[in-house]
Amino acid sequence: MPPFNAHVDRLAPPAVPAVQAWAREYRDGLGPLIDMSQAVPGYPPHPDMLRFLAEEAGSTRNTGYGDIEGEPALRTAYAADSARLYRAQIGAENVHITSGCNQAFVVSALAVAGPGDAVLAVNPVYFNHESTLRMLGIRVATVDGRAADGFLPSVEAIEKALTPDVRAVALVSPNNPTGAVYPPDLLKAIFELCRREKRWLILDETYRDFLPDGGQPPHGLFAKADWEQNLIGLYSFSKSFCIPGHRLGAITAGTALVAQVAKIMDNLQICAPRAAQAALARAIPILDDWRQANRVTIQSRTAVLKAVIAQCPGWEIDAIGAYFAYIRHPLEGLDSIAVSERLAKEAGVVTIPGGFFGPGQERHLRFAFANAVEETISLLPDRLRAV
Amino acid sequence: MPPFNAHVDRLAPPAVPAVQAWAREYRDGLGPLIDMSQAVPGYPPHPDMLRFLAEEAGSTRNTGYGDIEGEPALRTAYAADSARLYRAQIGAENVHITSGCNQAFVVSALAVAGPGDAVLAVNPVYFNHESTLRMLGIRVATVDGRAADGFLPSVEAIEKALTPDVRAVALVSPNNPTGAVYPPDLLKAIFELCRREKRWLILDETYRDFLPDGGQPPHGLFAKADWEQNLIGLYSFSKSFCIPGHRLGAITAGTALVAQVAKIMDNLQICAPRAAQAALARAIPILDDWRQANRVTIQSRTAVLKAVIAQCPGWEIDAIGAYFAYIRHPLEGLDSIAVSERLAKEAGVVTIPGGFFGPGQERHLRFAFANAVEETISLLPDRLRAV
Repeated sequence: MPPFNAHVDRLAPPAVPAVQAWAREYRDGLGPLIDMSQAVPGYPPHPDMLRFLAEEAGSTRNTGYGDIEGEPALRTAYAADSARLYRAQIGAENVHITSGCNQAFVVSALAVAGPGDAVLAVNPVYFNHESTLRMLGIRVATVDGRAADGFLPSVEAIEKALTPDVRAVALVSPNNPTGAVYPPDLLKAIFELCRREKRWLILDETYRDFLPDGGQPPHGLFAKADWEQNLIGLYSFSKSFCIPGHRLGAITAGTALVAQVAKIMDNLQICAPRAAQAALARAIPILDDWRQANRVTIQSRTAVLKAVIAQCPGWEIDAIGAYFAYIRHPLEGLDSIAVSERLAKEAGVVTIPGGFFGPGQERHLRFAFANAVEETISLLPDRLRAV
Repeated sequence: MPPFNAHVDRLAPPAVPAVQAWAREYRDGLGPLIDMSQAVPGYPPHPDMLRFLAEEAGSTRNTGYGDIEGEPALRTAYAADSARLYRAQIGAENVHITSGCNQAFVVSALAVAGPGDAVLAVNPVYFNHESTLRMLGIRVATVDGRAADGFLPSVEAIEKALTPDVRAVALVSPNNPTGAVYPPDLLKAIFELCRREKRWLILDETYRDFLPDGGQPPHGLFAKADWEQNLIGLYSFSKSFCIPGHRLGAITAGTALVAQVAKIMDNLQICAPRAAQAALARAIPILDDWRQANRVTIQSRTAVLKAVIAQCPGWEIDAIGAYFAYIRHPLEGLDSIAVSERLAKEAGVVTIPGGFFGPGQERHLRFAFANAVEETISLLPDRLRAV
């Protein structure tokens, strides 16, 4: 057999299927499986969303190719939604629709960095960000987000790490895997550093609709007059509208960046799937109350999880926010992969080991608790005691 | 503004929107616009297909994430369809579903080649193949397919071009842009050369369902006992099922290659959109007669186009097959871009200039004639005379 691309061959197999394979060995001894591995909404889409999806998918309006940058109606609706949230000037021309937020990251990273360049990320790193950069031959530079600092990096550490090959700083807030929320002041300082040092700031806000305070902008970066110069915002419709299977995400950026992304997207898949875009364009203006209600629901799960983990001797929530909790396990002699594997196989609780997110993460597991109803979360103490 | 990735920055803007911009300047003086730029079916999907799309999109069955490699039902249905067509052993485990055939090419190329490697293509080259390789930092090596040879390359030329950095040979049959169909013997010889020289053969058969002889396998490569060692087949559901807007394609390859592709797809978009996959899995087994009828329809357009171009002094069909005709224009002093632009702006006929497909293509235009009904094709002589 001829060789594979070494950059791809070296990648570990995908993380979520790996932990779900462990789960298939669980024998139900302690009750039903509790899957906290993947960030998937635990409730269904709104009935109107499903109806729009059916109507648009069944229509010949959406069978042909669409605009590379996305359906004009969706770009307009999402731009208006973002402009309102961030209290900023964001127009349809600033939006590029992608097939999910992973793709938004791939094309954003590729637009600004190539082989031999580097992108600076914060350790622990969302595994798909790291493997995306590696597969493209882009070096992954990291600064540590330490537990003592709420897993947030310092501006000084980022500044020190900005070697000339670093083309962009990539942040995730609310964070995956830790759940840590970057305060507006920290984001502002990092943005200004990037501006001064002529680097792009890629800010993945997949989980922003689940921040505690829905009324406030998560940060002020898009409200700055010249945000288009070096800011790239990423968003996922998967979590907020409960449609990960329909694969839609968005990039918010300056028009020059959007034009670069369009060249990549044309190669990659011409356009994101159209019917779901048309459905979303109808849903965004009318589902605001529903999204707010989901925010409250998931916030209430945060409180339940905190109370539940407090009953588990040795287990500690080191960070929590939006969709994820980053929890320290008490099994000092075991690495995170061994603990996560035992938890899945023996206790039927599926998590992602900290080790999947980078070095020094062996004491942590990522719990995607937003997936689970409160009754399910309440089962955790018995399960955690079992390992 | 910080710099962009030079590999992306250097790419030309996407081809289809560029020619469609010319078309917007046409003032309807000669009658309605004739758009032969993009390969899009000119007829709608089967009503059952639309019904399945609506049912699956409206169901909560398809709202969550799916298997990275594709929905098991679709992988099974497509494998069975392919096994029958090629009279070969092809199982679901050999199939990876992608979001369109452009994506199938991107992930296949990336699975076998990285920055500094090369992929060998045949000039004229489908523009998205070339720009995909360039944006990934992969060198595009070419051999010429000359008009005198029906735009097919010789095995000797390919052998000579197999420098050590060439990881794969990429062919398109029926060809885009020329329409040329690679004879089975030529494909066999190129495949055996690739096998001997330890290179991958990527064979894009997006248009295979529109070959004249529907009963015969297009080639015997998949019927070879060890095809999995170095053959990668690409396919698009867009043309055959008239659903380009739903973005689905497929890779047929050995399980080792499928595992590499899954790592890339997980980064790129986790999985192809699910509802359309579920709909296709239901459609494939029951729409065979309909697909055959479309094949006949498009074949009949071939004959009409030939008769029509024969009435156009100086215009010559140099190659034709499946979806495309590669037509030589009579305007010796003008390059293909100037001719295509005038044709679009002044005569309302939208084509793709040969120059978009590589060097030495200035006398040719690509006509995606399958888009047009016969009455429309019959309008061409008056329009071509106008430029």
